[in-house]
Amino acid sequence: MTDNIVIALDAMGGDQGPAMVLPGAERAAVRHPKARFLLFGDSNILTPQLDAIPSLKAKAEIRHAEVAVAMDDKPSQALRRGRGKSSMWMAVEAVRNGEAHAAVSAGNTGALMAMSRFILKTLPGIQRPAIAALWPTMRGESVVLDVGATIGADARQLVEFAIMGEAMARCLFGLDKPTVGLLNVGVEEIKGLEQVKEAGRILRDLQLPLEYSGFVEGDDIAKGTVDVVVTEGFTGNIALKTAEGTAKQIASFLKAALNRTIPSKLGAALASGAFAALRDRMDPRKHNGGVFMGLNGVVVKSHGGTDALGFATAIDVAVDMVKNGLVRKIADDVAHMNALLSPLNKAAE
Amino acid sequence: MTDNIVIALDAMGGDQGPAMVLPGAERAAVRHPKARFLLFGDSNILTPQLDAIPSLKAKAEIRHAEVAVAMDDKPSQALRRGRGKSSMWMAVEAVRNGEAHAAVSAGNTGALMAMSRFILKTLPGIQRPAIAALWPTMRGESVVLDVGATIGADARQLVEFAIMGEAMARCLFGLDKPTVGLLNVGVEEIKGLEQVKEAGRILRDLQLPLEYSGFVEGDDIAKGTVDVVVTEGFTGNIALKTAEGTAKQIASFLKAALNRTIPSKLGAALASGAFAALRDRMDPRKHNGGVFMGLNGVVVKSHGGTDALGFATAIDVAVDMVKNGLVRKIADDVAHMNALLSPLNKAAE
Repeated sequence: MTDNIVIALDAMGGDQGPAMVLPGAERAAVRHPKARFLLFGDSNILTPQLDAIPSLKAKAEIRHAEVAVAMDDKPSQALRRGRGKSSMWMAVEAVRNGEAHAAVSAGNTGALMAMSRFILKTLPGIQRPAIAALWPTMRGESVVLDVGATIGADARQLVEFAIMGEAMARCLFGLDKPTVGLLNVGVEEIKGLEQVKEAGRILRDLQLPLEYSGFVEGDDIAKGTVDVVVTEGFTGNIALKTAEGTAKQIASFLKAALNRTIPSKLGAALASGAFAALRDRMDPRKHNGGVFMGLNGVVVKSHGGTDALGFATAIDVAVDMVKNGLVRKIADDVAHMNALLSPLNKAAE
Repeated sequence: MTDNIVIALDAMGGDQGPAMVLPGAERAAVRHPKARFLLFGDSNILTPQLDAIPSLKAKAEIRHAEVAVAMDDKPSQALRRGRGKSSMWMAVEAVRNGEAHAAVSAGNTGALMAMSRFILKTLPGIQRPAIAALWPTMRGESVVLDVGATIGADARQLVEFAIMGEAMARCLFGLDKPTVGLLNVGVEEIKGLEQVKEAGRILRDLQLPLEYSGFVEGDDIAKGTVDVVVTEGFTGNIALKTAEGTAKQIASFLKAALNRTIPSKLGAALASGAFAALRDRMDPRKHNGGVFMGLNGVVVKSHGGTDALGFATAIDVAVDMVKNGLVRKIADDVAHMNALLSPLNKAAE
């Protein structure tokens, strides 16, 4: 694939809307000089803002959308109100129509997932979609999924998530066979949920482009023990938010501790470069972009509260997924899995 | 209750065994001058070690146990090998016999839970036990349960966990009506697992000594949004370990950042007091002690890898639970819940 990638942006999404999305696209456009952007949203708002960014204007096109999905709309409400005419819907529709290679939105997650499922449908052989997060670890980054698309998963769905995650890790990290672990409450084979154990047995037997590493525990995510951590959406969402909360807690404790005495304030000033490096390393804006997996197209969800830098990262992720053929990789591996599983299934009948 | 508390210690438990348990008891004995200790373990090992700590020797009694449960024994194995004659079994048995008010062990969690359930049994009206963790938060400490005793929980079991957690928070924090939240993937009432939503409805209707605060998300744990966070053991265990992993990750990133340049090294030296304060605040040894909830007796599990300071904290927790009548509080509230629920159940039939 060439670099002539078209990205559809929900310009009204996120806490700041176009004021964040357009500067985000401007940054991404520098890194992906051949990329073009479709900006979906209220043209009365978008036109003057785009006029103010000539470098982006040369590569972007505004597509008027009457409706903007609110951050607190329920998915059903958003589908009703926003169907066909909201910036979010139209951005995803552009992917289905082949006008864009991927859609990026910082809007309401539930609404974006509902619309993406409705418009793009799941890939053949995929029962339910997942959202994959990029997680900063002690070894670099890992893919963790599902972080909240679907609650609960049986063994088969966990295997599908493993395939989606392996495909994403191959796209992002350039690995041939990423290591994959199933999140569990212990690393022993006898422990944990029955469906997790069953998924482990299937992953061990199937010949997939991944190296199955067995069970991993909560602390293995931060350690970066495996490239891909697989779990269902309830636990994955709670793990993700627990980690975010812990990081904020430690940052706040550190700040308070450094402000207690004159020497520690001086020390903090001297070490300000180190704190900047730490902030940079943990910067959520650099790991922004939840990828919707298992659909007939690439949709990336940016954090709603991010800024232009964070939104540009989400666009980067979308570009990487398109360039490296995420959807094709998942479709191939799922077809392969189905071919391998069907005799097993027949034997079990 | 007076301060004449007797604590049964599994002196062979933990990575270091008696070398950690005895100095831990020595520290705890200073804080609880009227407490006495029963030390279960190999008397050939324990006798000389106890002789070397005269202050503890005056308050402790050795009870010989032939067997020590290994840290990697499977629960079934431990029950078979250790029944009646292991230090862990005998420590828990001392609680059932009324010789001790509580048992503390740094041994194998699965084995300790299996033995505790077997020996002490669950309280009337409690279907399954839970392990409650003390979680350091931005507001102080919260109780989080279950962190790994039982996998999965229906609505009724989640309500039981809420009662256990409220009882523990009342014992530890001296609150009349602790705030209680159910861990979920969103704070909206329409989101999440069906059993979590149902538990929310029950908690809202029941008149219990707690203030039900609705759903909380993963990041609310670190924020200290509620005094008690309720979830089932799979998710709770993964949340706990994810937070531990994240804390270690940030500590390691911080250390690496501070070692990069001469000014930051100097700064770190100047601010060493602040880093010591931060370490102190996040010190897992100060929040050590998983309380086994819902049993006919108090059993506290210490981290296996802790030191004397950490083990002393686990003993503190046990003493607090005994002094404040944890088991009585849970039994009363469960009976109350059953009385309140039975007409509801009848109406639903």
